[in-house]
Amino acid sequence: MSGLEKLQKSFESYFAHRHFPRDPSSLYDPLEEFLLNSGKRIRPVMCLLGNELFGEIHQDAYHIAAAIELFHNFTLVHDDIMDRAPLRRGKPTVHSVHGEPTALLGGDAMMVVAYDYINKIEAHYLKNVLALFNKTAKEVCEGQQYDMDFEKMHTVSLPEYIKMIELKTSVLLAASLQLGSIVGGASEGNQNHIYEFGRNLGIAFQIQDDYLDAFGDPTKFGKQVGGDIQSNKKTFLMIHALETATGEMREILLSAIAENPVNKIELILVVFKACGIDTWANALKEQYLTNAISHLDEIAVSKARKESLRELAYYLITRDK
Amino acid sequence: MSGLEKLQKSFESYFAHRHFPRDPSSLYDPLEEFLLNSGKRIRPVMCLLGNELFGEIHQDAYHIAAAIELFHNFTLVHDDIMDRAPLRRGKPTVHSVHGEPTALLGGDAMMVVAYDYINKIEAHYLKNVLALFNKTAKEVCEGQQYDMDFEKMHTVSLPEYIKMIELKTSVLLAASLQLGSIVGGASEGNQNHIYEFGRNLGIAFQIQDDYLDAFGDPTKFGKQVGGDIQSNKKTFLMIHALETATGEMREILLSAIAENPVNKIELILVVFKACGIDTWANALKEQYLTNAISHLDEIAVSKARKESLRELAYYLITRDK
Repeated sequence: MSGLEKLQKSFESYFAHRHFPRDPSSLYDPLEEFLLNSGKRIRPVMCLLGNELFGEIHQDAYHIAAAIELFHNFTLVHDDIMDRAPLRRGKPTVHSVHGEPTALLGGDAMMVVAYDYINKIEAHYLKNVLALFNKTAKEVCEGQQYDMDFEKMHTVSLPEYIKMIELKTSVLLAASLQLGSIVGGASEGNQNHIYEFGRNLGIAFQIQDDYLDAFGDPTKFGKQVGGDIQSNKKTFLMIHALETATGEMREILLSAIAENPVNKIELILVVFKACGIDTWANALKEQYLTNAISHLDEIAVSKARKESLRELAYYLITRDK
Repeated sequence: MSGLEKLQKSFESYFAHRHFPRDPSSLYDPLEEFLLNSGKRIRPVMCLLGNELFGEIHQDAYHIAAAIELFHNFTLVHDDIMDRAPLRRGKPTVHSVHGEPTALLGGDAMMVVAYDYINKIEAHYLKNVLALFNKTAKEVCEGQQYDMDFEKMHTVSLPEYIKMIELKTSVLLAASLQLGSIVGGASEGNQNHIYEFGRNLGIAFQIQDDYLDAFGDPTKFGKQVGGDIQSNKKTFLMIHALETATGEMREILLSAIAENPVNKIELILVVFKACGIDTWANALKEQYLTNAISHLDEIAVSKARKESLRELAYYLITRDK
């Protein structure tokens, strides 16, 4: 078992208990159930890794990891309402089973319980931890708002998209690492580097996500390949294609977007390949990975201690599902 | 100007600034606007009163008061979505102007900013304050869930209704006082008494609310008199009427509820009067007020210091709007 798998198991065993009161069960039981349908627990594991990089893992890192996991799940419950999504991780979403009011209120309660976990940590770093947690939570909300705003916009530039991804996805990964590092006793300089490692890695992670939607192996990729293309989602690939495609390719692209032909995904993939969007995306991902690793290199601990974070980085950006 | 009005003005001047970042304005501007359409600021004033009872008002009481006001407004924004309410304080609700997704996300962001205010206070009581704030926030969510559950139930008993009101309304009033008292340096015993004062007062406050809906003076009461009756809302009055009306009065009541005649409000008010529901409600309110005052009496500070809280109590339960 790798270092990552060990931490994942260790977090699961800490997290395997009831998080909410019994009553009202109409509010809390759907939340317990949602948390069991787990996902990969990437963020809590990153929190534990952030601690481990600087010292033995302290109980407080588990508390913060739980808070992060609850916060992340709260955003999923609310995002699913906003997106009117019927499914999440292959199961019906909370609002589609229990109704919007309960999903909305349940998300609220989940967020409060996240703060309960934060409040379990030792008092001396509570203020710092809470400050970073709050800053991140606000940024995640901002990212979601930009994402919704972008849906209504005709064009979105690459820098605008990257800023949105940074807020919506990257900062929570980065903060997970930094929060763990605070518990581990990292200096401010090292905290900054581990945050930047996570922020850059988060963008590379999203590029991989967007890439898999278009070029993933349908036998491995959990979702329908081309789902983003079908729904005209502005992704790294689509934004770059719109910025670079010319001549016939541009015409095919624009008419496929406007007219939704039955072979839309196929047509747009032809454009993506012809314009070298796949190669471009991989190169951009490598660039963010390189930035991330350079910050990891700067952290003043032995190279051996950094192995798990390096493993995580390569796992996240080479995954095929 | 009374002590209460002074504190209200003082809170308003502390609170009169932008609470959210500028961007994305699509997320934050609706929240700023909502906060300007103020309401009576009862909860933040109670927080300041809780501090003032034990000592000079400390800056931290203002921070906590702001957090409470933001939390309260966050619940209003989300409750309005759940209730599909078109109006709040005479103005269109956030979701009806800006759409549900923005109102939902905006509520979330408002709650995070509430925690930002909490984090401004001195570190030494941060843990205690956060614990009470979280406990209360969870209870308010539970109260809202019970309220929604009750809508689907055929009958609700008085103890069930009181428990719901306690969670949905009372605990936040009680916690506002106690949080202020923590800043003021109150002992645990005194904190307990001020909380119980607020909890009992909160129930009396709700009885008055329910009473005004049925028996308020239409020229003073802000909302349509009889709105609760029209929508078959389970209120203190309705629950007691259903428990006590017999014979012809019971028949009129049940058929008015079931059949929604044009003179429904009139008919049900006849039943309420015939069954002495108004007298009963006033007596019940007095009983909770007496309980509240007995806790106020127990607090170990001079009688003179308690004057503003006594003034508040009588204001809240004798108000006509």
